[in-house]
Amino acid sequence: MTSRHAGRHFLQIPGPSAVPDRILRAISAQTIDHRGPDFAAVGKTALDGMKTIFKTEAGQVIIFPASGTGAWEAALINTMQEGDRVLMYETGHFSMLWMKMAKRLGLNPEFIEGDWRGGADPEAIAKRLREDKNHEIKAVCVVHNETSTGSVSPIADVRSAIDETDHPALLMVDSISGLASVDFRFDEWGVDVCVSGSQKGLMLPPGISFNCVGPRAMEVSSKGGMRRSYWDWQDMTGPNETGYFPYTPATNMLYGLNETVEMLHEEGLDNVFARHARHGAATRAAVRAWGLEVLCAQQGQESGVLTAVLMPEGHSADAFRATVLKNFDISLGNGLSKVADRVFRIGHLGDFNDAMLMGTLSGIEMGLEKAGVPHEKGGTAAAMEVLKGDYTHSLAAE
Amino acid sequence: MTSRHAGRHFLQIPGPSAVPDRILRAISAQTIDHRGPDFAAVGKTALDGMKTIFKTEAGQVIIFPASGTGAWEAALINTMQEGDRVLMYETGHFSMLWMKMAKRLGLNPEFIEGDWRGGADPEAIAKRLREDKNHEIKAVCVVHNETSTGSVSPIADVRSAIDETDHPALLMVDSISGLASVDFRFDEWGVDVCVSGSQKGLMLPPGISFNCVGPRAMEVSSKGGMRRSYWDWQDMTGPNETGYFPYTPATNMLYGLNETVEMLHEEGLDNVFARHARHGAATRAAVRAWGLEVLCAQQGQESGVLTAVLMPEGHSADAFRATVLKNFDISLGNGLSKVADRVFRIGHLGDFNDAMLMGTLSGIEMGLEKAGVPHEKGGTAAAMEVLKGDYTHSLAAE
Repeated sequence: MTSRHAGRHFLQIPGPSAVPDRILRAISAQTIDHRGPDFAAVGKTALDGMKTIFKTEAGQVIIFPASGTGAWEAALINTMQEGDRVLMYETGHFSMLWMKMAKRLGLNPEFIEGDWRGGADPEAIAKRLREDKNHEIKAVCVVHNETSTGSVSPIADVRSAIDETDHPALLMVDSISGLASVDFRFDEWGVDVCVSGSQKGLMLPPGISFNCVGPRAMEVSSKGGMRRSYWDWQDMTGPNETGYFPYTPATNMLYGLNETVEMLHEEGLDNVFARHARHGAATRAAVRAWGLEVLCAQQGQESGVLTAVLMPEGHSADAFRATVLKNFDISLGNGLSKVADRVFRIGHLGDFNDAMLMGTLSGIEMGLEKAGVPHEKGGTAAAMEVLKGDYTHSLAAE
Repeated sequence: MTSRHAGRHFLQIPGPSAVPDRILRAISAQTIDHRGPDFAAVGKTALDGMKTIFKTEAGQVIIFPASGTGAWEAALINTMQEGDRVLMYETGHFSMLWMKMAKRLGLNPEFIEGDWRGGADPEAIAKRLREDKNHEIKAVCVVHNETSTGSVSPIADVRSAIDETDHPALLMVDSISGLASVDFRFDEWGVDVCVSGSQKGLMLPPGISFNCVGPRAMEVSSKGGMRRSYWDWQDMTGPNETGYFPYTPATNMLYGLNETVEMLHEEGLDNVFARHARHGAATRAAVRAWGLEVLCAQQGQESGVLTAVLMPEGHSADAFRATVLKNFDISLGNGLSKVADRVFRIGHLGDFNDAMLMGTLSGIEMGLEKAGVPHEKGGTAAAMEVLKGDYTHSLAAE
């Protein structure tokens, strides 16, 4: 390893994703007075712009100077009371962290166990809600794109499951790593609260995070929730109407956010989602050609954001990642908690294209060789077949 | 007013302060993996660097992706229990906001009323503590540099006042707008918790904020405080030791922070403080020559960060500020709550020099004329006398 790394670093973790130069330039514009007349347009553009990304007209977007963990807390603290039962689904590490946070905040989370190899199961959720005759469960909390496993939960189906049981629980969705990479429809899917962050599909550095809040959740928060100040939605609504905030916003990040929204619409959200899905398919083709296993085992729930790969028994995923970083200046994501050192994660999200994907997969292929990990040849070739060919066809063939 | 403003905007509000180009460039560097090996140096440099700015060896610096309001909440929530009595001092608008937050979080704040024309009075604090035989007061909360009035509280004297009553209350200080502009000494002054933010003397955009936590406060928080997750100090200590954070930090803001600390030490903290004090003195000389009144009426407590100026009776401060903004592209701070429309505030903090100050004061002088505000001539001339002359002498003459 030489002291200088020539060329660009490949930041192929599932977020933060590499920030486009256009956004880096936007955030480096001079800070303005967040109470002055010029700020109104910055704030209003950001708040309105994010509604188009969440696909909501009925919902209200809240922007916090905070990371995604803070937006998780805000979602719970604005709507739940101490002791409230919340139904959460174990999709992976981040669902566990959200559950642990709920406990620390005094809630009573009920965790439907999962095997980390797929999204949330709407049937299991419906079953539990049917048993809850007294409606003790106040919210169903599901991770949309589980960053630790690369599985996507079928949010529309979770909504249907709740509806068919006539249960009044709120539907809260973590789409921190899903939003702007994987299809998400706040209004159409009947989500009550969506939590998101800046450093994934939105292609920004970390530092701001979001709640998208539907009318029912806003109503609940107006009369309830826990003691709160910084996270209070109610404080935001008034000033937000004209583009201002109750306390100092992260002005320069908002500059970047406004650039992001413009870029996403220039490409078209559907094209953005298709690009991510296609890169996911090409990556899985490579992984299977290497004879390795994709962690997500539910067909149709594989993420376009990242692919988690199981290492062959007896081989350390972290040692492999270190080899790839050292030799090819490519950062891969590590396995978290239950799958620590057992999986590595390939991020293919954000401002990303075919050549960058092939650079990444080539580095992994050479890294497998260098690290002495048993594998078959032909992964990169298989990925190129997907990229060259009819991608829809490739998906069907999986 | 033409549609294009030639030249640089003068952001002369008391924060956010204009961000130096060097820092804007630093925050626009590519985001890296906050769990990767290269991040350790970024995080460690930031945490260690801020200790030199707070002037602490015994204390621990906590960095939140949040604005200053969040760091206020963190200080209270980590140390206090529901119903706890806290003694707060009304120095101005920000002390009121902190008090209101304490109420919302379930604390029982006792507010020593002030006239907004000086810093906190150590004698009044000592008197109240002496009466509190049962030590029901758990913390004394004081604003160091009150951003709404331009007065500086004598923190060392507040500490002495607490000590001479043998009262165990924690001393919590808001130095959001004081730190790195006005002398602050965490260890020497026996502060238990200091709250600060990025967008004032630290010359960064808003988006990160700080708690500096002394051993006693850390001990209290380890056994007590309120239900918390995002703001929990205890979660930070482990990962911080090696430069990492328990959840995603605002990576790019940390790049900027490391640049800031370097810049502050290049100039020398004492020189930074002297520069601010000198600009405060020159500004006050101008204000007095105009025949206007400085809001801070306590000699020796005038802030080097900003000067709040009382408008002559019957004249709107906000209309005057609009005139200055429209004609000279200079943003001045507005009067807040009790002094709304009655004062305007001149920020002279951060990355600022003599010529910028004279540009600002000249715009104000011309603005007074244009807005038809009765005033004497000679303000800018008086300021130049201070800037040209022996500044220590000028201070003595005030």
